[in-house]
Amino acid sequence: MNNFTFHSPTESVFGKDTQKQTGKLIKQYGGGKVLVVYGGGSAERSGLIKDVTDALEEENISYAILKGVRPNPTDDKVYEGIALAVREGVNFILAVGGGSVIDTAKAIAMGAVYPGDFWDFFKGSASPVAAIPVGVVLTIPAAGSEGSPNSVITRIDGLHKLSCRCQLTRPRFAILNPELTMTLPWEQTAYGITDMLCHIFERYFSNTTAQLVNAYSEAIMREVMDHALSLKINPEDYEARADVMWAGTLAHNGLCGVGKEEDWATHRMEHEVSAIYDVPHGAGLACIAPAWMTFVARKNPGMVWKFAINVMSVNPEGRDTDHIIEEGIALLKDFYHDLGLTTSLTELIGKEPDIDALVKSLEGNMGKTLGFYVPLSMDDCREIYKLAL
Amino acid sequence: MNNFTFHSPTESVFGKDTQKQTGKLIKQYGGGKVLVVYGGGSAERSGLIKDVTDALEEENISYAILKGVRPNPTDDKVYEGIALAVREGVNFILAVGGGSVIDTAKAIAMGAVYPGDFWDFFKGSASPVAAIPVGVVLTIPAAGSEGSPNSVITRIDGLHKLSCRCQLTRPRFAILNPELTMTLPWEQTAYGITDMLCHIFERYFSNTTAQLVNAYSEAIMREVMDHALSLKINPEDYEARADVMWAGTLAHNGLCGVGKEEDWATHRMEHEVSAIYDVPHGAGLACIAPAWMTFVARKNPGMVWKFAINVMSVNPEGRDTDHIIEEGIALLKDFYHDLGLTTSLTELIGKEPDIDALVKSLEGNMGKTLGFYVPLSMDDCREIYKLAL
Repeated sequence: MNNFTFHSPTESVFGKDTQKQTGKLIKQYGGGKVLVVYGGGSAERSGLIKDVTDALEEENISYAILKGVRPNPTDDKVYEGIALAVREGVNFILAVGGGSVIDTAKAIAMGAVYPGDFWDFFKGSASPVAAIPVGVVLTIPAAGSEGSPNSVITRIDGLHKLSCRCQLTRPRFAILNPELTMTLPWEQTAYGITDMLCHIFERYFSNTTAQLVNAYSEAIMREVMDHALSLKINPEDYEARADVMWAGTLAHNGLCGVGKEEDWATHRMEHEVSAIYDVPHGAGLACIAPAWMTFVARKNPGMVWKFAINVMSVNPEGRDTDHIIEEGIALLKDFYHDLGLTTSLTELIGKEPDIDALVKSLEGNMGKTLGFYVPLSMDDCREIYKLAL
Repeated sequence: MNNFTFHSPTESVFGKDTQKQTGKLIKQYGGGKVLVVYGGGSAERSGLIKDVTDALEEENISYAILKGVRPNPTDDKVYEGIALAVREGVNFILAVGGGSVIDTAKAIAMGAVYPGDFWDFFKGSASPVAAIPVGVVLTIPAAGSEGSPNSVITRIDGLHKLSCRCQLTRPRFAILNPELTMTLPWEQTAYGITDMLCHIFERYFSNTTAQLVNAYSEAIMREVMDHALSLKINPEDYEARADVMWAGTLAHNGLCGVGKEEDWATHRMEHEVSAIYDVPHGAGLACIAPAWMTFVARKNPGMVWKFAINVMSVNPEGRDTDHIIEEGIALLKDFYHDLGLTTSLTELIGKEPDIDALVKSLEGNMGKTLGFYVPLSMDDCREIYKLAL
């Protein structure tokens, strides 16, 4: 186990009707004038936006609204939000939605108190020294952004999808009501499950010794997979919704990565796919993750073998390492198929992706090597994209 | 899963040499004049106190010292610390030690800014509205006090051992260096492991549905038991020390209890034993926990059965529930014996304890019923003490 700092200060307020506490929580964290950020009409139609704004009004908190954040959120919405936040003089930003909305809110939070261009933080030419406090009402358990310091934004000019890690943007609170997720279209549930599992993969596949962390990470992965299949049959299973929602936070609040060298190659390779082809992030991960495992297992089988046995429940008796790994990855693909997802990039995009363009963009954004479990050259990444076709 | 709030804001700074960051961390959290609280001479002899005070001096932080906190910490030391903290005008309290030291520091933190008697908070006649910030350098992984809002103090007059839960006393940071635990006398390691396991038991044995939380709790319990036996053979196994130390924090920072109705009868019953007979808390728990499980399994077998199979690895095939439970509890006792601990109160105390006195004191402190997994009458508690003889 390497030295580490674990700090997860976000207050998780979990359970039925908790969105009605939004006003009290914002007040508790010092908010008086709020920018409410959300996506499409579903949050309005479901009554959630009304619940939230009612809760603000009850506490005499005034607010402005920024709506229309889309999946794979783009810089234009961030600029619009920054202008609005500055004009309205807000001192708190409330994200009502999933990862795209939260990531947009975080980018606005940093950008609205920075005299330069917020994109500086994403391209790495500046570090934020202040941010407006952020709170979250989560509607899609997936990105883990409700408990993380991360934000991922796509710059429309050049289709650069980059992430920024800033502790100042860690949400003060995250309201997690599993009931809000019951009416999600199935594919959103499936993409979310794929994303949270991959957040654990990125930390699990590591060369650092970490018996305890691996054990509880495996437990979380197994339960998420188990609940995913239950939800396919009964989307209104509250306990399954609750466990999946809580797992989404634990998958990305740092708990599963303590003391480990994390990898993140799968996410980075997927970001190119969703930036260029505008496919859902979770859908892209279902293609890249098994391909990545297949490739890295050739060079460093240990953790892929362990994953096959401890997470995918492959019986190791009387079988060699290669077969165990092969079956583990096949079972992971079966799991994605059971969720209704493809594991083929060609099928996902509707045509063969331009691998040269993906690798070129990846190299432009990330440099010559990627990841740590097996450090990947750009040729290795090309090979993984091919395995994912 | 019940509604819950999970908030674990303590910054864990984990790994080798991290005690040298004490000064910087205190400065970061606003401390300028510190009360350093510790126990006996071992922290001085090991050089830890010098490391810590050097780190304070490097940041030009002045400090006063309160030493001599003993296991099962008592109110007299708290009063002494309050007087010293007030006289010196400290604005930060640093605990260097295990649970007893941290709990004393927390009680001082509340008491030094309260015009009345700090014991009001423990007997429940007042609630703290302020506390001096607390930080921790942990030397004994056990109580989990480094990440919890709890403090347990014994009032010498009447031997009342009571706990107080106050979010204001939650440590701002906890420095966790596994190397500091390598030279602990074996029994301290064993008591610590028993205590942290029991912190999970208190949350695990619950009637609330909690598939995910149970699964990761089981994983943590299994790994702690596995590492405990490794440490018996090789006390300088860094990875085992590290995992046990991190498990001690996770066992009590709330993670294993989210959304569950927690029990806490075993701890409450043990507090009477260690208050009256001044035995180590962990040693008392090794006697009470198996007796408690034996008793509650008769009325509510479900979770004890699950514990036997999923934590103690009893093979359920072809065996009935009673036998599975019996073997699970026998294996738990074997585990304690392997650690060198007795599971007999009579052996622990050196004579048969006065069960009437234990029950009378328990009723005086806790009222007529105890616990939630099976709500216990005082007659039930008497029976459990008998099972633990």
